[in-house]
Amino acid sequence: MANTRIQIVKNILSANDRSAEENLEFFNARNILAVNIMASPGAGKTSVILQTIKALSPDTRIAVIEGDTAPVTIDSEKVSNLGIPVTQINTGGNCHLEAMMVRKGLQHLELDHIELLIIENVGNLICPASFKLGAHINLVTASIPEGDDKPYKYPGIYRGIDCLILNKIDLLPYVDFNQEYFRKGIEVLNPGIPVFPVSCKTLEGFNVWTNWLRSRMPGK
Amino acid sequence: MANTRIQIVKNILSANDRSAEENLEFFNARNILAVNIMASPGAGKTSVILQTIKALSPDTRIAVIEGDTAPVTIDSEKVSNLGIPVTQINTGGNCHLEAMMVRKGLQHLELDHIELLIIENVGNLICPASFKLGAHINLVTASIPEGDDKPYKYPGIYRGIDCLILNKIDLLPYVDFNQEYFRKGIEVLNPGIPVFPVSCKTLEGFNVWTNWLRSRMPGK
Repeated sequence: MANTRIQIVKNILSANDRSAEENLEFFNARNILAVNIMASPGAGKTSVILQTIKALSPDTRIAVIEGDTAPVTIDSEKVSNLGIPVTQINTGGNCHLEAMMVRKGLQHLELDHIELLIIENVGNLICPASFKLGAHINLVTASIPEGDDKPYKYPGIYRGIDCLILNKIDLLPYVDFNQEYFRKGIEVLNPGIPVFPVSCKTLEGFNVWTNWLRSRMPGK
Repeated sequence: MANTRIQIVKNILSANDRSAEENLEFFNARNILAVNIMASPGAGKTSVILQTIKALSPDTRIAVIEGDTAPVTIDSEKVSNLGIPVTQINTGGNCHLEAMMVRKGLQHLELDHIELLIIENVGNLICPASFKLGAHINLVTASIPEGDDKPYKYPGIYRGIDCLILNKIDLLPYVDFNQEYFRKGIEVLNPGIPVFPVSCKTLEGFNVWTNWLRSRMPGK
């Protein structure tokens, strides 16, 4: 029975990879830059998204897909309140988004003229790593109070990302966090990766992240 | 194929429930109080365990099982440095502990005279909820910087717990956190549940938690 299960999981994974490739082709055909934001619960994914919208919109036309494990609309409402098209995917208790879910979410979004699609993955430092969504940029939002040892403890999700946002740097004076140790853990897994220390509260460092993001958009 | 998978998952779940019951019988036969600590990565599970050991040991004889998704021994070493027997379970990338893993971990621990077994689950606010371990006390460690909306967003893991530790209250002056809103979210899911606001840094509130825990131990 164990073998049957492994076979099925393999099938699901490769089906997901195929869907992810289709999503990527879909984004490329429309000149949409897609960003997949992964993080631990409470690292500040939604805050990063809201501040990114405030920095880049309306010059950049943005849409958002919100992944949630439960049917609560707390995050989607915050995005919608900024006048940004948003669709929410409830995974029904599942611990990650899959490419096919994203594809379904896209069907509920008005994508004409959209240049940037931000996908907020489910808050989880393990499972989302195994499911590509077809995004151009896969990033982790870490946060100071989570601790500097997380890249060492959760290498699966920290490995192979395209950039890292280190959020809540306004809390550095109150928390023991060795930035050098943290960055070493990131660098070993992703040599040369851009790291953006930011505070969504004070906005310190935020323009470095949004300038980088803007530079990745087709036609900007 | 989907049905086959669901059937297999059901079999795994009920096999886990049977193992969990066996673990509980094992603990009861030896007068061991078993505690399963679940939390988001970085909420402070290990800090709570270390401070609990410092408060209760050596009067209470304690052993620890550390669940980790990767083969790093950061947490286990901290426990071992306090002279406490510890065994580490590497889930090999899996997102939760299962009862059978705990059973295997027990075989590597010297349990004679042990009164309290603390099991640190994998850092994850979703998956561990589906796998009972046979512990007497299932608890979530939340933390102030994670935000006050987590019980609403992750109801699966916040529902049906026996108590809650709200860690990092020393950061309350620096973070927007509405304790009333948070407690309402917990209370709706678990009417009358004990909530222990603590700081592992200043130790504020910590003795309320350890006194409660001591009161749950057989023979104390």
